[in-house]
Amino acid sequence: MKALVYHGPGQKSLDERPMPAVQAPGDAIVRITNTTICGTDLHILKGDVPTCEPGRVLGHEGVGIVESVGDAVSRFGPGDHVLISCITSCARCDYCRRGMYSHCADGGWILGNVIDGTQAEFVRIPHADSSLHAIPAGGDEEALVMLSDILPTGFECGVLNGKIAPGSTVAIVGAGPIGLATLLTAQFYSPSRIIMIDLDDNRLAVARKFGATDTLNSAQDDVANKVMSLTEGRGVDAAIEAVGIAATFELCAQIVAPGGVVANVGVHGAKADLHLEQLWSRNITITTRLVDTVSTPMLLKTVAAERLRPEQLVTHRFDLAHIIDAYDTFSRAAESQALKVIIKP
Amino acid sequence: MKALVYHGPGQKSLDERPMPAVQAPGDAIVRITNTTICGTDLHILKGDVPTCEPGRVLGHEGVGIVESVGDAVSRFGPGDHVLISCITSCARCDYCRRGMYSHCADGGWILGNVIDGTQAEFVRIPHADSSLHAIPAGGDEEALVMLSDILPTGFECGVLNGKIAPGSTVAIVGAGPIGLATLLTAQFYSPSRIIMIDLDDNRLAVARKFGATDTLNSAQDDVANKVMSLTEGRGVDAAIEAVGIAATFELCAQIVAPGGVVANVGVHGAKADLHLEQLWSRNITITTRLVDTVSTPMLLKTVAAERLRPEQLVTHRFDLAHIIDAYDTFSRAAESQALKVIIKP
Amino acid sequence: MKALVYHGPGQKSLDERPMPAVQAPGDAIVRITNTTICGTDLHILKGDVPTCEPGRVLGHEGVGIVESVGDAVSRFGPGDHVLISCITSCARCDYCRRGMYSHCADGGWILGNVIDGTQAEFVRIPHADSSLHAIPAGGDEEALVMLSDILPTGFECGVLNGKIAPGSTVAIVGAGPIGLATLLTAQFYSPSRIIMIDLDDNRLAVARKFGATDTLNSAQDDVANKVMSLTEGRGVDAAIEAVGIAATFELCAQIVAPGGVVANVGVHGAKADLHLEQLWSRNITITTRLVDTVSTPMLLKTVAAERLRPEQLVTHRFDLAHIIDAYDTFSRAAESQALKVIIKP
Amino acid sequence: MKALVYHGPGQKSLDERPMPAVQAPGDAIVRITNTTICGTDLHILKGDVPTCEPGRVLGHEGVGIVESVGDAVSRFGPGDHVLISCITSCARCDYCRRGMYSHCADGGWILGNVIDGTQAEFVRIPHADSSLHAIPAGGDEEALVMLSDILPTGFECGVLNGKIAPGSTVAIVGAGPIGLATLLTAQFYSPSRIIMIDLDDNRLAVARKFGATDTLNSAQDDVANKVMSLTEGRGVDAAIEAVGIAATFELCAQIVAPGGVVANVGVHGAKADLHLEQLWSRNITITTRLVDTVSTPMLLKTVAAERLRPEQLVTHRFDLAHIIDAYDTFSRAAESQALKVIIKP
Repeated sequence: MKALVYHGPGQKSLDERPMPAVQAPGDAIVRITNTTICGTDLHILKGDVPTCEPGRVLGHEGVGIVESVGDAVSRFGPGDHVLISCITSCARCDYCRRGMYSHCADGGWILGNVIDGTQAEFVRIPHADSSLHAIPAGGDEEALVMLSDILPTGFECGVLNGKIAPGSTVAIVGAGPIGLATLLTAQFYSPSRIIMIDLDDNRLAVARKFGATDTLNSAQDDVANKVMSLTEGRGVDAAIEAVGIAATFELCAQIVAPGGVVANVGVHGAKADLHLEQLWSRNITITTRLVDTVSTPMLLKTVAAERLRPEQLVTHRFDLAHIIDAYDTFSRAAESQALKVIIKP
Repeated sequence: MKALVYHGPGQKSLDERPMPAVQAPGDAIVRITNTTICGTDLHILKGDVPTCEPGRVLGHEGVGIVESVGDAVSRFGPGDHVLISCITSCARCDYCRRGMYSHCADGGWILGNVIDGTQAEFVRIPHADSSLHAIPAGGDEEALVMLSDILPTGFECGVLNGKIAPGSTVAIVGAGPIGLATLLTAQFYSPSRIIMIDLDDNRLAVARKFGATDTLNSAQDDVANKVMSLTEGRGVDAAIEAVGIAATFELCAQIVAPGGVVANVGVHGAKADLHLEQLWSRNITITTRLVDTVSTPMLLKTVAAERLRPEQLVTHRFDLAHIIDAYDTFSRAAESQALKVIIKP
Repeated sequence: MKALVYHGPGQKSLDERPMPAVQAPGDAIVRITNTTICGTDLHILKGDVPTCEPGRVLGHEGVGIVESVGDAVSRFGPGDHVLISCITSCARCDYCRRGMYSHCADGGWILGNVIDGTQAEFVRIPHADSSLHAIPAGGDEEALVMLSDILPTGFECGVLNGKIAPGSTVAIVGAGPIGLATLLTAQFYSPSRIIMIDLDDNRLAVARKFGATDTLNSAQDDVANKVMSLTEGRGVDAAIEAVGIAATFELCAQIVAPGGVVANVGVHGAKADLHLEQLWSRNITITTRLVDTVSTPMLLKTVAAERLRPEQLVTHRFDLAHIIDAYDTFSRAAESQALKVIIKP
Repeated sequence: MKALVYHGPGQKSLDERPMPAVQAPGDAIVRITNTTICGTDLHILKGDVPTCEPGRVLGHEGVGIVESVGDAVSRFGPGDHVLISCITSCARCDYCRRGMYSHCADGGWILGNVIDGTQAEFVRIPHADSSLHAIPAGGDEEALVMLSDILPTGFECGVLNGKIAPGSTVAIVGAGPIGLATLLTAQFYSPSRIIMIDLDDNRLAVARKFGATDTLNSAQDDVANKVMSLTEGRGVDAAIEAVGIAATFELCAQIVAPGGVVANVGVHGAKADLHLEQLWSRNITITTRLVDTVSTPMLLKTVAAERLRPEQLVTHRFDLAHIIDAYDTFSRAAESQALKVIIKP
C-alpha cells in the first residue's frame, strides 16, 4: 500500500509499504477514506518529537471502513464506517478509567508517533473497541475527520478547561486551525464575548465569520490594553493559548480576570515566565492538557444535530498521490490560506 | 488605646491611638480579646507591601466583643462575641456574589493594610454583618483566632483548590504555620498519603504529630526523586506550595502527577519558571488564590464538632504590652519553635 | 398611587393606596415603569397561597426608576434604572451566602406575597443593594421584565438543575410561559434535541419557533412511547416538569434515561407517586427549586450580547388602568394565546 | 465443584456443579477464597428478583485467585489475587465510558443474577480486565470482600450522592450492614454530625462504635422532630435511605434541610409518596443509584492507608459446606446480631 513515511528531520516520501495486519485480539485494520495533516506532523518533520523515529508512517486523524478485526473486538466488524480517535485508549487502566485516555498505560498518542499512522491506505488500530467511533449512516466523512483530533482538542483543552459558560468573556490567542476549532466549540456555551487574537488578518476575518465578536491583530494593537478596555478593565474569564510559545502564554496570564482561567492548548517547546508576584493573589487557574477525546461521542451528536459544522474548517482537498503537495500547502498556511487539508487515499 | 503601629520598613512601636468610631452604617467597633501575628505582617515590616503606609495599625486576625454598631448592622449587637475575618466583604458586589470576597469591590484584604487593624485594643470593622462571625458560647477564643486567616487560607487555597479527596496523595511544601494549617484541614478529606517537605526538622516533627504520613527534609533529600518513589513513579495528586519562592513552586510542578493540581498558597515576590515544554501534555492544573474566607462558617462547625483542633497551632502567648517581644519570637521561628503566637490586649 | 390589590380568593381591584416609604436603611423606593403578571398571581387569587393576605398589593416582577433610598444603600441612587428581582436577598444570612437567596432569612419570595408588590405605581424594595440590578443604558425594559422571575426560574430550576449540556436530549413538559423560558435558556448549552410536550397546539407551534426540535401533543400522542422512540429507547437526559401536577411529574420520571435528571419547575398543590421500585436502580436525580435569581447578572449579559431575546415572550401590553383586563387576558391564555402581558403604570 | 444454587422461591441447596470454563476472550476463572451473603440474595430467595432463574449459583461478592484467563485478558493472569466487583463492566459501552458501569450494555449486575455467581468454589468473570481488581500483597482478604459491593454501595449511593462535606449534618435511616457501610465511608468527609436511625438498639450501639454522633430508635422516638431539634430546626444536609421501604424514604424527605439531598441506597419493592406540594420550593435533590463500583480503586487505597477498616463489618465465619447455616444466621440478623458473614470455600 501507499503511505507517507517520515525519514528523519526534514525528510518524508510517499512509499510503498506492506499492508498492516491484526497483531493483538483487540486490533482492527481500517481502510482510510479521508485523512488530514496536523500541526503536530509538521513538528515531527522538524525533528521536535523524539519518540517518532524514521520509518514511521505519519498521521493520527482519519475516517475509514473496517477491513478486519481481532477476536476480542466486539463493537465493530468489517464494513463498518468508523472515525479514528487520535488517542488510543485501552479503557481499562487507571488513567482510562478516570477519563484521561491521553495517559493510557497502553495507548495515548501513539498513532503516527510510536506506531504507524493514518496517512496511508490502511492502518492498524489497537484497542479498536475503545479507540474507534461508529459513524452514522450518511455522515459527511470529510467533516468527521475534524473530530479525530482538532475539534476534541479545541473543546477539551480550551473550552472545557476554560470553563466557558453563558455570558462569559473569552479571548483565544491564535486563530489557526486549533484556535478556530476552539472558537467553534466555545459557542456551545453561549459566551457573551469571544475576542480572537492573531497576527494574520485573513485568519481574523475567518474568525469573525466563525462567530468571534471581536478580533485584534497583535502586530498592530496593544493587545493587552485593548482586551482590558473591551472588558471594563477586568480581563477575560477565559484566556485560551492556541499558539504554543512563551509570549502568547504570558499574554494570556496578563489578560485573565481575577477568578478566571488560562487554558493552554498549544504545544510548547520552551518554558515561559510565570509572574507569581502578580498572580498569587488573583485567584486564577492555569490548565494544560493533551486531548483525551472523551468528548468525541458528544461532538458526534452535535454534528448530527447540526449545532457544529466542522466542514467549515476544510479549505483544500488532495488525493494520497499528492500528499506531498498537501503538506506544502498546509505548511505555507499564511500564503495558501489553508486551514485543514483533506487527503483521500 | 494601645495599638501596634507600622512606621515604615523595619519600624514599629506600641503607641497610644484614639479609639476607632463608627463611620458608616455597616460598621462595628470590636474590642479585641485575642489577636495574633501573620507572616504577612512581617512582609509589611520588610517594606514589601506598598499599599500599607506608615501610621497604620497592623493585624488582620482576631476575636473580640462587639462594642457598638452602625444603624444598618442587623446580625450583631453590643456584647456579642465575634470572630473577625481577615477579608472584609460587602456581600453585594459581583465578586462577593460569586464567593470571591478576596476581590470585594469595597473590601478584600484591607484590615491592617489600608485601614487600621486588630493588633490594638479596639478595631473598626466595615461591612460587619458579612465580615464578622458569631462565636458559639463557650468557644475557645484562642483556638478561634486561627480561623481569622490561617485555617481558611490553608483550606481554601491549598485543600479545596488542590481537590484533595479520599485516597489521594498530597505533598505540602513548607511546614510553617500555613503549611501546617493546610495539613490539618487536608485531613477533612482522608487522603491516603500526605508528604510534608521542609528544611527544619522540628517543623517536620510537628507535621508528623499533626498527621503527615511522610516527611522529607529538603536540605538532605533529593526531594523530587523521593516523592516519585513514594508514589510509584507517578507524582502526587496535589502539590501544595506553602513557602512563596520560585524554587518551591518549581518543585511542585516537578512532582505533580498527570491529572493533578499545583495549588499555590504562598505569597510570592518574584516570578517562577513554568516548564510548559514538559507540562503542556501532562493535564495539570495550577491555582492561585488570596483567601476568600467563604469556608469560615464550615470551619466553625468542624471546630465545634472537634474534627479540627486549631489550638494545636498556638505555641506562645503574650499580652499586648509585650507585642514587640511577640514579634521577635514569631520572626525567629526556627530558633523559638514558634508557630502561632497569641496576643491578648 | 394606583395599585392592584388582592381582597381574598377570587377578588382583586385597582385601588388608591398610599405611597410606600423607606422603612429600613437598606430600602429603596422604585417607580415602576413596566410590570407583568405571573402564574403565581393566579394561584394567589385562587386562594392557594395562605401567606398572602387580603389587602396585599400583588406582583413580584418589574423594572423601574429609583425614587429614593435609605442610608445604607450604596449601589443605587435616585434616577437609576433598575430591574427588580422577584427574590429579596439580604446577602448576609447563611442561605444567601450559599447562593440560596430563595431561602433568605430576611427575604426570599416576599414581594406581592408578605409585603406589597410591583403591580403599582411605586414599590418598596428591602435589601435594595442585593435585590435590584442596574439596567444598562438603552436596555429594552419590556424585555428585561422577563428577567425578574420567569427567565431565571426556567434557567435555574430547569436548565441548571437539569444539567443540560452540549449534545444532551431534553424534554420539557409544559409549553406555557415558564416552559418556554426554559426552552429559550436551554439553548445556551446546545443540547442536540429538545422535545416540547403540551396539550395546546398553538403553544407547541410557538415552541418550534423558539427552537424546539420536536413537539408532542399529549392529548393525541402516547407521549412516553414517542419520547422513547425519539431517543433510541433510552429516554431523555433531562426531563423538565413545567406544569405543576402529579401526572406531568410522573411522566418525567417515566421518560428520564438512566443517569438523567428530572428537574421540577412547576408549583405543585398535591403529592405525586414516586415509583422507587422502578427508579431505585436507574441512577437518576430529581430536583426541586424555588428560583434563587443568582443567575440574573449572567442573564443580563446574554441579553446585552443578543444571545437571549426575552421580548419574544411578550404578547400583550396594557396600561395600569386596564390591569383587570390584563389579568383576564392572561388567565384565558389558551384562547387569547397570551404568553406574558406587559403592564405599564 | 460445590455451589449454592437457587431453586425457586424459598429453595436453595449446596449442589455439585461442573467447573466453569472460559467462554469469551475477556473471561477469567477465579477460585474463590472468601465470599459473603448480601441482603439482595435474600430478596432473590423470596422470589423478588425475576431476572434470577432457578438453577442459578448465587453470590456477587468475593475475593480469590485467578485460575485461568482468556486470550484478551491482559491485566491478570493465573495466580493473581483479585477482588471481584459485584458489577461487571465491559469498559467500552457508552454507559461504562461515563462511569455508569451499573448500566453496562454487556454487564451491570449479572453475577449471581443472570449468570452464575460467587458462592461456589469457582466463578467465571466476564470482562475480567475491567471487573476485577488486584489485591495488594498481604491484603486482609476477609476485609476486602467488603469492597465487592457493600462499601462501594454505601459510598457511591449514599456518601457521594449525598454530597457529604466537611461540617455537614447527615442522617442515615437504617443501621443494617449497608447503613453501617455508609456510616464508615461518610467519615471520609468529616461531617460534623451523623445521626443514625434504626429500630434495633444493638445496631444503634454498633453505629455509635462506628462513629455515629447521635442515634435515634425509631420505635421509641418521634424521629422527625428529634432530628429537627438536633439541627436547630433546619433538617439535615443529607438524608440517606438505607432500608428500602416507603416509610423510611418519606422520613428522609421530611428531615432534609432546604438545599439538601435525599440519597436513596435501599432496594425498593413499592412506590412512595412524594410530597411535591411541600418540596417544590425547598431546593432539594433526590438521588437513586445502583452501585457502579467506580470507587473501588479509591477504597482499596483507603484500606491500605488504614483510613477505612472494613473488617469491622464481619461478625461470623463459615466454610462453604455450612453455607446453609450462614444464610440462616444472616437472615436472623436481629437475633444473631450478624452484620456480614464470611464464607470460605
